[in-house]
Amino acid sequence: MKAYEAEIRVRYQETDNMGVVYYGNYFIWFEVARTEYFRSLGLVYRDLEAKGVYLMVAAASCQYKCPARYDDLIKIETWVSELKNTSLKFEYKLYAEGKLIAAGDSLHVFTNKSGKPTKMPEEIRAICGNS
Amino acid sequence: MKAYEAEIRVRYQETDNMGVVYYGNYFIWFEVARTEYFRSLGLVYRDLEAKGVYLMVAAASCQYKCPARYDDLIKIETWVSELKNTSLKFEYKLYAEGKLIAAGDSLHVFTNKSGKPTKMPEEIRAICGNS
Amino acid sequence: MKAYEAEIRVRYQETDNMGVVYYGNYFIWFEVARTEYFRSLGLVYRDLEAKGVYLMVAAASCQYKCPARYDDLIKIETWVSELKNTSLKFEYKLYAEGKLIAAGDSLHVFTNKSGKPTKMPEEIRAICGNS
Amino acid sequence: MKAYEAEIRVRYQETDNMGVVYYGNYFIWFEVARTEYFRSLGLVYRDLEAKGVYLMVAAASCQYKCPARYDDLIKIETWVSELKNTSLKFEYKLYAEGKLIAAGDSLHVFTNKSGKPTKMPEEIRAICGNS
Repeated sequence: MKAYEAEIRVRYQETDNMGVVYYGNYFIWFEVARTEYFRSLGLVYRDLEAKGVYLMVAAASCQYKCPARYDDLIKIETWVSELKNTSLKFEYKLYAEGKLIAAGDSLHVFTNKSGKPTKMPEEIRAICGNS
Repeated sequence: MKAYEAEIRVRYQETDNMGVVYYGNYFIWFEVARTEYFRSLGLVYRDLEAKGVYLMVAAASCQYKCPARYDDLIKIETWVSELKNTSLKFEYKLYAEGKLIAAGDSLHVFTNKSGKPTKMPEEIRAICGNS
Repeated sequence: MKAYEAEIRVRYQETDNMGVVYYGNYFIWFEVARTEYFRSLGLVYRDLEAKGVYLMVAAASCQYKCPARYDDLIKIETWVSELKNTSLKFEYKLYAEGKLIAAGDSLHVFTNKSGKPTKMPEEIRAICGNS
Repeated sequence: MKAYEAEIRVRYQETDNMGVVYYGNYFIWFEVARTEYFRSLGLVYRDLEAKGVYLMVAAASCQYKCPARYDDLIKIETWVSELKNTSLKFEYKLYAEGKLIAAGDSLHVFTNKSGKPTKMPEEIRAICGNS
């Protein structure tokens, strides 16, 4: 499936005592990348939630190869690597100045507002399945 | 009114590139201190929200005197300095090893879930007015 | 002095239980706006730190008028309102869809890496004084 | 190896628009749990960094079973599951009211300040190997 490339400028707040980006913040970037991936395909995730469909995170992981630093411009290659009846998996590759610095993934299940699993909306399948 | 002293251990995530706590994180500590202030007086803020009463922040400020660092144990003196019909003001003094490192305040208005201002619940007035 | 307009897309991570942006996160946006303000004038704040000059925050405040929500596009008008020998003050106005939602300021002192106050570098005065 | 149980009270800031704890924040809790694990064994991680030894994160993952909510008291079972020459792996199990809500792990390599891998300090091996 087609990848989308999101861009993030590292914020001062995202760095830590070691002078590099705190490891937990990569998962925030994954979220930004997912939102922009959907937007690039014509789907506004906020609208999906307004219709009562939520993408709950079931699992997430990240492998860190090189540190990211304050003010770096990070490119995040993002794509859907798995599409099942009630779940969807994203993969991410992060680059700084053309160099791979981290890779990760996140597994999501479709739920309603109260957290009960539901089937994937057809618009998601149509969009992600063809991308 | 009586002050409550909350205690916070500085997390690695809360530090930044400068090797000190990022300035925005003090406002998170204020929130923790408010919650514990209420709890010390027998009021669980979560229960208040469950009843449809929200303490929306209208203004907040902080003055920074000395940096806080990773693993420091911060004491936060917290008290209600102002109690009006629809609003409430908290003040905070932060200490590390007995030394004042920052001071701040936050102004809150009582609202319902949709953000419409409401009167202060009697239980708040009873608790904070006598403290 | 001339204002710069930075743009921020609200991240899911920045929202809270109330369904709005957490009040402490506005200070992170202020930081992003400052960095972009400097960049628009040809100054990369990261380079300044590389030369041993730090802009330590001495005070910060924010007044909240309307909540910001997930995926909102926030515009941040940013300008230097005060320029002294060893300090500098930023002001910020935040807009969502043309409507003022918050306003704030931050006071900074110039220090070296170990936190000792120093004089404002000439390049800052040249840039901000004329902007 | 022996597990340590850290305790975390969910902060309002840690929740999101869905009314649950944002998935990236679990990694911050892992960090707090690691620090307290070491402290319980007599090792202050801050002192380790002061000696020039850093525990850089090489990989991290989390599986989410049930959401955590504002003001929940989370218990984090933490232990070292792998101890090699230059790396160390932590595992975590998170409980709310006795119920397993999430599990995760993090892989760390020992480096100096500039990120170059170094051997594990003997004090770490002595402490973690016997725990």
